[in-house]
Amino acid sequence: MPETDVKIMFKLKELRTNKGLSQEGLARLCGMSLTNVRKYEQGKMKSIPFDTLANFCSKLECQPGELFEKVAI
Amino acid sequence: MPETDVKIMFKLKELRTNKGLSQEGLARLCGMSLTNVRKYEQGKMKSIPFDTLANFCSKLECQPGELFEKVAI
Repeated sequence: MPETDVKIMFKLKELRTNKGLSQEGLARLCGMSLTNVRKYEQGKMKSIPFDTLANFCSKLECQPGELFEKVAI
Repeated sequence: MPETDVKIMFKLKELRTNKGLSQEGLARLCGMSLTNVRKYEQGKMKSIPFDTLANFCSKLECQPGELFEKVAI
């Protein structure tokens, strides 16, 4: 894949904390492992399933766009 | 993963056509196979790498949020 001048930040931690949820709380709500919640928040996940994105949007009551930020690199 | 009341639509075709790009053109721009462009447009991809999302946003000059739509199911 050619060089890209932008990077995508995944803002799960920001939206989770805005909701007053702990990582454990979000993991339970989403039926996901705590390990995976932490990996998403630490930028260690290389990709995201559309179903997982839908699950986050549903539980965090947000739009998909709120979870992503395009930053120049 | 528990039932989710929403689904995420990936609006690559809409943004590509708004830019007047063919599937072949977008594939070339992104350094991606035509097959994969078609799979993203037909909803046959189950997940998306953050790098691929960055590449689409860069080449289509859009925000990540424009590529996704949350729909109730």
